Amino acid sequence: MFTQRRHQYCTGREILFPVVGQLADMSDTFVVVGGDAAGMSAASKAKRADPELDVVVFEKGEWVSYAACGMPYYVKGDVEDIDDLVAVEPETFREERDIDLRTGHEVVDIDPDERVVTVVGEERFEQPYDDLLVATGATAVVPPFDGMDLDGVFTLHDMDEAAAIESYLDDEAPETAAVVGGGYVGVEIAEALADRGLTVHLYEMLPSLLQPFGETVGETVADHLRDQGVRLHLETAVSGFAGGDTVERVHFEDEDAPADIAVVGVGVAPNVDLVADAGVELGPTGAIATDEYGRTNLDGVFAAGDAAEARHAVTGEPTHVPLALTANRAGRAIGQTVADEPTEVGPTAGTAIVKAFDLGAARTGLIDEERAREAGFDPVSVTISAPARAHYYPDATELTVTLLADVETGRLLGGSLVGREGVKRIDTVAMALHAEQTVSELQNADLAYAPPFSPVWDPVLTAAKVLSGKLD
Amino acid sequence: MFTQRRHQYCTGREILFPVVGQLADMSDTFVVVGGDAAGMSAASKAKRADPELDVVVFEKGEWVSYAACGMPYYVKGDVEDIDDLVAVEPETFREERDIDLRTGHEVVDIDPDERVVTVVGEERFEQPYDDLLVATGATAVVPPFDGMDLDGVFTLHDMDEAAAIESYLDDEAPETAAVVGGGYVGVEIAEALADRGLTVHLYEMLPSLLQPFGETVGETVADHLRDQGVRLHLETAVSGFAGGDTVERVHFEDEDAPADIAVVGVGVAPNVDLVADAGVELGPTGAIATDEYGRTNLDGVFAAGDAAEARHAVTGEPTHVPLALTANRAGRAIGQTVADEPTEVGPTAGTAIVKAFDLGAARTGLIDEERAREAGFDPVSVTISAPARAHYYPDATELTVTLLADVETGRLLGGSLVGREGVKRIDTVAMALHAEQTVSELQNADLAYAPPFSPVWDPVLTAAKVLSGKLD
Repeated sequence: MFTQRRHQYCTGREILFPVVGQLADMSDTFVVVGGDAAGMSAASKAKRADPELDVVVFEKGEWVSYAACGMPYYVKGDVEDIDDLVAVEPETFREERDIDLRTGHEVVDIDPDERVVTVVGEERFEQPYDDLLVATGATAVVPPFDGMDLDGVFTLHDMDEAAAIESYLDDEAPETAAVVGGGYVGVEIAEALADRGLTVHLYEMLPSLLQPFGETVGETVADHLRDQGVRLHLETAVSGFAGGDTVERVHFEDEDAPADIAVVGVGVAPNVDLVADAGVELGPTGAIATDEYGRTNLDGVFAAGDAAEARHAVTGEPTHVPLALTANRAGRAIGQTVADEPTEVGPTAGTAIVKAFDLGAARTGLIDEERAREAGFDPVSVTISAPARAHYYPDATELTVTLLADVETGRLLGGSLVGREGVKRIDTVAMALHAEQTVSELQNADLAYAPPFSPVWDPVLTAAKVLSGKLD
Repeated sequence: MFTQRRHQYCTGREILFPVVGQLADMSDTFVVVGGDAAGMSAASKAKRADPELDVVVFEKGEWVSYAACGMPYYVKGDVEDIDDLVAVEPETFREERDIDLRTGHEVVDIDPDERVVTVVGEERFEQPYDDLLVATGATAVVPPFDGMDLDGVFTLHDMDEAAAIESYLDDEAPETAAVVGGGYVGVEIAEALADRGLTVHLYEMLPSLLQPFGETVGETVADHLRDQGVRLHLETAVSGFAGGDTVERVHFEDEDAPADIAVVGVGVAPNVDLVADAGVELGPTGAIATDEYGRTNLDGVFAAGDAAEARHAVTGEPTHVPLALTANRAGRAIGQTVADEPTEVGPTAGTAIVKAFDLGAARTGLIDEERAREAGFDPVSVTISAPARAHYYPDATELTVTLLADVETGRLLGGSLVGREGVKRIDTVAMALHAEQTVSELQNADLAYAPPFSPVWDPVLTAAKVLSGKLD
């Protein structure tokens, strides 16, 4: 409703209610469902852009605005106090930002015709809205394993779970861990548990770790995890856990092995039950379909964050990227839009980075050739290794770069990096994707060089040079 | 001559000389003057792209293809053997790449009408060329100081000088150093000498260090150098040195101070004497004027590297950026062009990075507001500080980011970074400049986030967000 209706209303208001005091009751209400990255970004931005807006946030849990990505480092012990992961305190939202933030309040129904949501807190009530943002997030997938309810079996997708794992480690002193899933959470929690002295077994159904990062990264990270003492079980399907009250063994294929603690991280699924009932359309990924402003198919209803789709920077197609920056950025744009400053959410390149013990791994865009072909490209790729600093500079380590491009147009499609340092340079590749650059444009970029920081040709440029040769 | 004439010739050759053996004498000759970054890149690329081309390189010294930027780290002791700074050995060029590389050969004259250069080696001779690349580099400016010829007074612009400083440190064990000039060389050599235990005084005429990096960087680096024990003398003009055979004192303003060794790094000047005599035009910066292919005003004569101008990515104007990547890139493009694959040299953003003890500093584009106004922009800037990693992640340090934009168009003009880690992210800003992005486009970039590597909003994005607010 930020477009025509809102503007008509605003215009009308100026004529009918010239006295400021009379405006209070007429101010719009922006209701946000979900108090983490997307929700609180939207609430904050909307209120800042339009202080007259009433902004109400309903969060069913107690934690708001927390850094879910920091949880493995809390489990590891790098972050001492779980409260350190909270970016902004609830009181700050309430008192300094004048946002009506209500934790322990679950929105259980949306009536898009009446523009009302039904909320259950200490009591059940209805809350009208002019604009509504659905930022319900995602939930860790709980596979149909036997024994998922045993003590000592965890997923890791919210702060309560992180706290529970930490307590369990402190109280039960488990010695052997089964980590199920070789994605971000699996790799990060494997590091955390190994660092705390546990023997860690990591089980992954696929042939490689960190599948969205491509084979090169997956294999490099796998080798490194083995070097660090993690027992990898690739192409191994876990079927469940066994024990008394507490987990004792993990079952996989026809075998089983001891496990005093298990962490299951096999992906996340968008929380869409609330909106599906209200007639909000889901997209091809199963997350909420949105347009370039984060609008759903229902008037005045936006969606953002892990529950919503985004537009892919390379393919232009809907994609589901349940990552923090995408959520923050979309929330912020929607907040601005709701405050009558229409702002596009912007595409996502699917840029991601992960630490795996002493290695960093990063990816952006399209890396998988088959996926690129599906998107209509004719992909060609290179993988090179080059020192992250000048080769003669002390402690220079190798950075392995993969770049993928379209043969016909020379357009860069994506890339990955893996190495002990310098993987944040994936941002260079992400910037090239946003600018829809060709490989030869990237190759000509004037990047920073000095021996302590890079070779003359940054490894990303070297990869572009080599890939460019394959495109001629 | 790579355009029309070359193509006519090639066409003609195909008709007249169908037998390969007969082509040998008819092959074009590409002569390169100067055997470092630009020259050897051009020679290598040309030969690879057109193996039939005769490629001759004349280098007046003995060192070729060396990393001048690594010299401070040789002086410091981080690089043990000066030969480690050589990227490619002369034998490799000669034997593997089939390049006629002649060290100890100085080109003393160019006759553009006859397409002949005069060379002085063990004897004097003439060498015809079809295409000529002038890559004569730059030389350290030697200011008209008293006592510049004293033992122990050095500049640092070539490998012989680096070796001489290192020997002097070993043999004479100086205790107090006078570093004159607070640019790259001054700051890097101050670190090297302090690390070797000398008391270092650094003298700079301007009010701040690293002037091209802007005030924020200059002040941050100055504070850090002081913390590291360097005695800074800003706004202090050195007039010369005094001593017997060997430097003993440095004179500045109305004072003097002890100095057992002095390194003068007050800038470089392009080596243009050779070409100026031949009628090659210089540009407004005093370096050789070139077009988008690196061509000078003379047919068949190219220029690249520290001797030549480049086109600025933001202003589009000629600029003189005597840095290694610019030289390598231009050399490579010219090599390709000479081999009948016309390739633009590409603009330079003036991206640079420097280590100053435990700090890194980086810059790209236009940072100085006055300079931006001269280029026709209406600049506005912000400076923010934000943690380089998630604020709760161990050892997170602050990164200070400055961004400059044009008020009217919102276009990003340049930026700088300074901090203990993460300054290579200047590449993100450089990429935005190459893509001519607005601040709001940069702000929407999908950059990599995980707690060990970045806050959710990378500091560069945070700076863009704040700057965007000033542009509304």
